[in-house]
Amino acid sequence: MTGRLGIIAGSGGLPAALAAAAPEAHCIAFEGAEVALDEDRLDRHRIERLGGVFAALKEAGVDRVVMAGAMSRPSFDPTAMDAEMMALMPRLAPALQGGDDALLRLVIAIFEEQGFAVIGAHDLLPDLTARPGPLAGPEPTAAARDDIARARAILGALAPVDVGQGCVVAGGLCLGIETLQGTDALLRFVGATPGALRGDRRGVLVKRPKDGQDLRVDMPAIGPATVQAAAEAGLEGIAIEAGRVLLIDRPALVEACEATGLFLLAEAV
Amino acid sequence: MTGRLGIIAGSGGLPAALAAAAPEAHCIAFEGAEVALDEDRLDRHRIERLGGVFAALKEAGVDRVVMAGAMSRPSFDPTAMDAEMMALMPRLAPALQGGDDALLRLVIAIFEEQGFAVIGAHDLLPDLTARPGPLAGPEPTAAARDDIARARAILGALAPVDVGQGCVVAGGLCLGIETLQGTDALLRFVGATPGALRGDRRGVLVKRPKDGQDLRVDMPAIGPATVQAAAEAGLEGIAIEAGRVLLIDRPALVEACEATGLFLLAEAV
Repeated sequence: MTGRLGIIAGSGGLPAALAAAAPEAHCIAFEGAEVALDEDRLDRHRIERLGGVFAALKEAGVDRVVMAGAMSRPSFDPTAMDAEMMALMPRLAPALQGGDDALLRLVIAIFEEQGFAVIGAHDLLPDLTARPGPLAGPEPTAAARDDIARARAILGALAPVDVGQGCVVAGGLCLGIETLQGTDALLRFVGATPGALRGDRRGVLVKRPKDGQDLRVDMPAIGPATVQAAAEAGLEGIAIEAGRVLLIDRPALVEACEATGLFLLAEAV
Repeated sequence: MTGRLGIIAGSGGLPAALAAAAPEAHCIAFEGAEVALDEDRLDRHRIERLGGVFAALKEAGVDRVVMAGAMSRPSFDPTAMDAEMMALMPRLAPALQGGDDALLRLVIAIFEEQGFAVIGAHDLLPDLTARPGPLAGPEPTAAARDDIARARAILGALAPVDVGQGCVVAGGLCLGIETLQGTDALLRFVGATPGALRGDRRGVLVKRPKDGQDLRVDMPAIGPATVQAAAEAGLEGIAIEAGRVLLIDRPALVEACEATGLFLLAEAV
């Protein structure tokens, strides 16, 4: 790597962590995006002027970019588009109607066509993911290990159809499979399971990427809020795939596990 | 078939439909169960006295039984059990802690050991399920057909892990997979999808039995309430597997589709 790093910053704690680890990086944010970085660290651009983004990155000597943090689906003001953006619209417009994966793949392709390497946040900060082994909380019970194995089998079965970043299993029963709405919605759904169905089963959340997911821009993540939501859903722990799930604010994540009594375990893929 | 039919009646419209179609049938209901049949048509027994049920059925000349309608998981008064029930408890107790499938398989096995054939409601009333083809509402659009195909692929992928009686797909995106909580919970979950994620996608519900399901006692079902819930979730239609999904109150089901504008389609397995 000879050139500078560019950070395309969205919301959440990740952009700040990357910016701190790479003080020389050039940080881009779109106007209107909430980014937890000092404004004087940010080079703001309108989403309609992607040509301006490419030019700014090149002028800053950037040759590789990392997309960090959550970005909501943009709405465009067609009258504000620059020429590069107009030229991209025939490709962007259909992708904006489709799933996140297709849109992100296209955005990666566009940056690569502009000569930038697209890298993942976890490539820059390996500690953003976990090594195999226990991360926090008590030792999982044998029943919890069985539930983890069952949830992994369910997610494995779903891999060919590109569904399922998460699954909750309790006492062998599948209480929920993560779909478009994300982990928090899954956990609320699980927590609302009638007691007559669930009995005294607690259960586990297993998180992993879908097979088709591009981990450079769309890695599943867990943070303290995930642990809190899992505790509120009555779970006894969380298992993630080592190396393939982002840990958001690791010290707070561990602390949340200790506070709620949930285990957090990383398993080898 | 030489002997009489026994109906083990739970809640819902199915026991009455069967009793009307088989006027000579002997109808058993457990005490406390809400059953939509005249009480003088019912032979009530306590759940703790299953031995009494077997004796009553045999005395009535019953040689085959159908279990119809929903039954909630019973609670037992151990002091009221008869000898047969006590003898069954070592097998029943663990099954009562487990999933519905295991419990129902055991109940079937117990009736079979007592010499009864266990048959499905759809064996008695073939019109309870659908033949392949459109059942109600408009012609599905090409996009809806694509969503049906994707939902079927997702359910097919889940078959080996014995999960998934239903799936909602909208514009190619999976908005929900049915788990223990059932179809209504799935549809409420889908209906709560944030608009920013869902956009203007409507989508379809696909219902089918799990591969491991014993259709004699646990066939998936849809009725007018399902159509109403699907409409409230913003869907454009429902597809079911022909021959393998119960149609509850078919005229009202068709009417609900016409009233809400949803299509109802049966597809060959």
